[in-house]
This record gives sequence, C-alpha cells and structure tokens, in this order.
Amino acid sequence: MSLIVQKFGGSSVADAERIRNVARLAMAEQERGNSVVVVVSAMGKTTDRLLALVDEISAHPDSREIDMLLSTGEQQTIALLAMAIHSANGKAISFTGPQVGITTDNSHRKAKIVSINTEKMVRELEAGKVVIVAGFQGMTGDNEITTLGRGGSDTTAVALAAALKADRCDIYTDVKGVYTADPRIVKEARMLKSITYDEMLELASLGSKVLHSRSVEFGKNYNVPIQVRSSFEDVPGTMVIKETEEMEDIVVSGVAYNRGEAKVSIMGVPDKPGIAADVFGRVGEANIVVDMIIQNVGADGRNDISFTVSKDDLQDALELAEKIAKDLGAEKVRSDAEIAKVSVVGVGMKSHAGVAATMFRALAKNNINIEMISTSEIKVSCVIRESDVDRAVQAIHDEFELREGL
Amino acid sequence: MSLIVQKFGGSSVADAERIRNVARLAMAEQERGNSVVVVVSAMGKTTDRLLALVDEISAHPDSREIDMLLSTGEQQTIALLAMAIHSANGKAISFTGPQVGITTDNSHRKAKIVSINTEKMVRELEAGKVVIVAGFQGMTGDNEITTLGRGGSDTTAVALAAALKADRCDIYTDVKGVYTADPRIVKEARMLKSITYDEMLELASLGSKVLHSRSVEFGKNYNVPIQVRSSFEDVPGTMVIKETEEMEDIVVSGVAYNRGEAKVSIMGVPDKPGIAADVFGRVGEANIVVDMIIQNVGADGRNDISFTVSKDDLQDALELAEKIAKDLGAEKVRSDAEIAKVSVVGVGMKSHAGVAATMFRALAKNNINIEMISTSEIKVSCVIRESDVDRAVQAIHDEFELREGL
Repeated sequence: MSLIVQKFGGSSVADAERIRNVARLAMAEQERGNSVVVVVSAMGKTTDRLLALVDEISAHPDSREIDMLLSTGEQQTIALLAMAIHSANGKAISFTGPQVGITTDNSHRKAKIVSINTEKMVRELEAGKVVIVAGFQGMTGDNEITTLGRGGSDTTAVALAAALKADRCDIYTDVKGVYTADPRIVKEARMLKSITYDEMLELASLGSKVLHSRSVEFGKNYNVPIQVRSSFEDVPGTMVIKETEEMEDIVVSGVAYNRGEAKVSIMGVPDKPGIAADVFGRVGEANIVVDMIIQNVGADGRNDISFTVSKDDLQDALELAEKIAKDLGAEKVRSDAEIAKVSVVGVGMKSHAGVAATMFRALAKNNINIEMISTSEIKVSCVIRESDVDRAVQAIHDEFELREGL
Repeated sequence: MSLIVQKFGGSSVADAERIRNVARLAMAEQERGNSVVVVVSAMGKTTDRLLALVDEISAHPDSREIDMLLSTGEQQTIALLAMAIHSANGKAISFTGPQVGITTDNSHRKAKIVSINTEKMVRELEAGKVVIVAGFQGMTGDNEITTLGRGGSDTTAVALAAALKADRCDIYTDVKGVYTADPRIVKEARMLKSITYDEMLELASLGSKVLHSRSVEFGKNYNVPIQVRSSFEDVPGTMVIKETEEMEDIVVSGVAYNRGEAKVSIMGVPDKPGIAADVFGRVGEANIVVDMIIQNVGADGRNDISFTVSKDDLQDALELAEKIAKDLGAEKVRSDAEIAKVSVVGVGMKSHAGVAATMFRALAKNNINIEMISTSEIKVSCVIRESDVDRAVQAIHDEFELREGL
C-alpha cells in the first residue's frame, strides 16, 4: 500500500461538477489500495474576487489581514470536497492548515513552512479516510494565520508528502505534463516522461507555470517524487525526480521562454572599480530582483551596464536607474520592454560541450539577433526581440531534435 | 473608560461601503474614550450562497463540514473590517472565534459556548486596538471548528461582553430599537427606552426578530446590559436590562404577534387519565416543539385536544397526529394554518390584575374571535384568525394606551 498526496488547483475545483470530479479521482486512488491525502486551492476566481473587495476598502492592506481573508478560500473548498466524497459514499475528513499543524514562520503572504505535525493525518488515514487539507495556509507558533504566497498549494502538497514520507506527490493541472516546449508554439513538442528537480527549477524560474519553484525545491530537498499530470485525462504525466545516470545522456530536456522581463541600460558610466557593486547593491536594496547583467567596457573609458528585471518592476527600476546615473555621472538611461528570453535546459549539459553553440546556430540560421546571453550549469538563455519568440523556440526545438528519442 | 462590545449583522456589512460605515461606528466609540470589541456576521447573502453550493454537492451534508464551510463567511468580514479601520488610520486587529479561545461543546451547527479566554483580547485592547471577532463560531477542545446556530453572532457578542465584563453590548440592527408594537402595523408605536431580559425573551420567542433568545438568556444570566440600536442612525436605542422596581409600574411593555404557527386538533379522544401525557410525549419524541395546548372535555366523555406548532413542523405534526389518533381510537384530526398569535408582554403583570381581561375586551370590541389562550407570569397570548392580526395588534396597542408615556 502506497501513500499518495494529490494536489488540485483552483481551476480543477472551480464549481460543483469539478469538485465531484476531484472526489472521483481521490476515491479511485483509494480503490487502487492507496492511502490518499488531497490538497486543494481556492475555487476558481475566489481569491481574485476577495482581492477586488480589498481594493474597494484599502490601498495598503495589512498583510496579516490579507492572510486572514484569503485563507478562507481554501477552507471552503476542503469542506465542499469532503461533502462530495461523503455524497459518493466515501470516507473523508477536511482540515485547515492550522488544524494539521502546518507551522510557518511569521512572514505574512510569503510564509515558509517550519514544521508539520502528521499525527492527526496518520490517524485519519488509518481509519480509511481521504484526508483533505487546505493548501496555501499555515499558522505561526503564536496562532496567527499565514499564507505561503504564489504557488503555495503546490508547496503544501510537496511538504505534506515529505512529512508523511509519501510515495508520490501528484500535481494535477490542466496540462498532461511537462513538454519539451510550449505545445501552443511547437506543435510536435513531446511530453517528457521524467525530468530532474534541477531542470524543473530552471524551467519554473524561466516562466514555465506548471510548478512553482518553491515546491520543486522542497521536493528536491526531501527527495519527494512529484508527478505533473492532467485533472481531466487519466494518463501518466511527467515525473520530477532526482538525477539518474541515464539522464545525463539527454543533453537538452526542453526549450523555455519568458516574455515577462524588460531591459534597463545605464549608458556611459565612468569606468571605476566598484561601479557594478554600487549599482546592483542599490537595486537589491530596493527589492528589485535582477535576472541577467551585461557590462560593456567602451573605448573611451566609459561603460554601458544593462540588466533585465520583471516587467512589473520596470517602472521602479527605471526611476532608480535615473538616480543612480545622476549620482555616477553616467550619460543616460534607456529601457526596452519589447524583449523576451529563450532558454534550453538539460542536466546533460554538465558533461556535453557545444550546447550553447548549437543554440546560437539555430538562432543565427533564422536571422534572430541575440542581445544578451546568460548561462548556468544546466541552462543557456538568450535575450532576443519579443516578436521573434515563436520562431526562436521552434528553431531551437528543431536544432536539438527534441521531437525524437527518450 | 468603558468597554463596549458592538455587534453588526450581515446586512450591516453587506458591501465595502457598509463595512466602512461599521469602521466609523467602532472608531467613534473609541474616540469617546471607550475600549471597543466588534463582533460581525458574514457579509449579506454569503451564507446563503455557500449553502446553495452545498445543495449542488450533497443532499445530506455532514454537520462538521458545514461548520468548516460556513465559518469562513465571518472570517472574511473581520479581515475586511480591520482593513477598513486601518485605512481610516485607526488601530484594529481581527480574530477568528478559535483564535480568541471561544471554546464550545461538540454539537456542530448548534454548539454552545463553554468558555472564553480573554487574555489575547485584553492585551490588544490595552494596546489601543479595536478588537474584531468573528461571530457565530468557536472551536471544541479537540480543535474542531463549530458554529453556534441561528442568532449565533448575537450570542458571541453577549458572551464576549460577559467574559470581558463589558459595560454594554450594543446590537446594531436595521431598526432603531424595540417598539411597543410593529411600527409597520401600528404607526404610533413607540420605541422603548428599556425592557427587561424576561420581556425580551418573551418577545423573541413570540417571533420578534430583533434579538435571538439565546443571546438574551446569556445577557440575563451574566447581567450584561444589551442595547438594541440602529446601524444607520446615531441615536440611543433600547436597553435590555434586569428588572428594576420602577419597571413594575409599567403593566404592558409591548404587543407582539407571530404568524409562524399552525394548529393541529385531535378530535373525539376517549377521556382516560394519561391521554395528554401520551400524546405530547410522542410529539416531543419526534422533536416537534409545541407552543400552546388546549384540551376540551366534551359531554360524551370524549376530548378534543388542540395544540400549535411552527408552520415548518406542520406536515410532520399532522402525520404523527394521524397515527396517535388511530392508536387512541380518536375520531379525526384537523389542522389549521390560517392562525396567528397576538400577545401582550410586561413584567408589571406580576403585580397588576386585569391585564388579560383588558386584552380580551380590546379584541371583543373589534369582533375578533379568540380561539386559544395561553398565559405566563409576564405574558398573555391569544390565537386568532391570521387575517385579523393587524386589527388586533392596533386594538390592543390602543386599549393599553401604549403610545403615551413610559
């Protein structure tokens, strides 16, 4: 007998009919002889509806009260799902995060799980019940309600799987699994049978929205096998697992893209030691996360420093860059929101040379200009024109022959 | 400095604008130098909307899961109200029932408060904050979420006032206070400055919907002064307090009516000792609450037994009466849903004779037939035709000259 944790997001529980579908999936897993814990998010647009109410009431809502408000969404879903299972003659019991002892730190709206008390869940699983737990929420040691931030229900599911030593954590979504590229762009994109935690982390940070990176980190740290699979079709999905030797033969697992970044350039900065540290120290203090950085040393002893930030942060970053430019005696500041990033990801890169060159060749063949380059141990990313994204993803997918093999 | 508990029902917090109004009322009380605890219900039709979802999912929902679901409504309101007070530069903090240690018994959907831990509330009040508490909910000793049933938020408010030894519990409603009669029927009805707990209990059980009887009982047991007042007009309302000597001079405080009952009659029951005990023993076992009972002994040694029940219970009561009639060898069963009850209430009746006679005279003058009569120490009730209610209430109000003087 295995212990399976299942997680269903907001669109999978958006109405009564879909909640009944989730009840069927949980009971089917139980009928296969497994113990089942289900983690759910708030129904459909519940969270958006609550935040719209907040907008009517407060321009700067207190994070503690936001958590008090938003945590009600998941609590509604767990109760309705328990009723749906009862109604289908199954056994189930619902628990809020605080009730199953999901203890977090005090960071409202982005709390981190500190510990989980599994006693209550184990007792109910042994009584043959489907244990339903509200995702996204926890409680501090001082009985304050917290939420885990974006992708919080994924994190709850993987953390519960780790704490309960579950055999698998199934993340149900509206796609069948993780693909070699976005199937909306590359029609011959192939679903991966498996992918490593590290590759999944790169994909998550690259803007692929299948799994939130915090949940993948949790899975990696506690070695929880995660399956990304469809809520609507009963077929195996993609397993996210730790690296195995045979995986190293696969040089590139997939091609990702991200349209969510913008570029800021500070032009004509006098060339002195410590300039970069000064610039990015101030950007970091302003809580603006920088992705890629390029510094060109010009012939006249002046530098151009360019960096990319989330489009959401562009306005703040620009205002700050203007101040920094003035302080440093730089010539001017430019910004560009029409960029995008394409990336190839694969653990095999660690032992295979020439991946970057293959990628650059694919882009060159298609007359796509590369504006910035960044690499990690298992990733190569290029900033290009946003209008070139679809062609670039297709070209790279073709060049690495991703439609075949595995 | 006084400590005031304020309670606002669902219609007083139905949207963002009304929540802002509640924030103003709480802050105004604080500006008068008082400590303020606010108890709120779920916004407007939230509870109905959640129950409609339940209907889609389950025909026989588990009470525990209903409590899990419904308790979210109040939790949403407390968070939004705290934000509204913050937004108006006030200090406030919200708490769920479980968070402020409202411990109840295990009776889901109709739990009774067992104890309240005031420590957290006192600490926040001392810090100058408006303490906002979710009404209607509590937690068992085993961390199970419970709700208190109909009128639960009133009960929470009065119970908190008792536990905190508050100087007053203000129940804000959509009426200005308690009247000598329904102002929609008697246009010269007068708002009472004060009324006793016992009178209020009689009015609550007579169908007046201003305060739920459980909260009045709580107020009486712990001697909490309760004020019924308007959410929309800043004027003093009606104080519900314990009896004082001068109140005994007031023979009748008000006239109430209830259209919610129906009459069942078992005709021609053989006259034997123990018949009534038998009939009402069986009715009680079926969980049907009986209000008035009349037994006429006929000339032929047969009795007619009539009793009134809530219209909601009429069908069940009729079916049971048919069985009882058969078992006892009675002749037939009749029912009548076109009845209503009019009552006069007043603690002064205890020391004044002739109240019943005055009431009967008022009805007789207006050709209104009395079908059943019931009296308590501080109440006289008559069952009449439902179509006569408005004329009866007006006639009794006139006869007792309630429009004048306190």
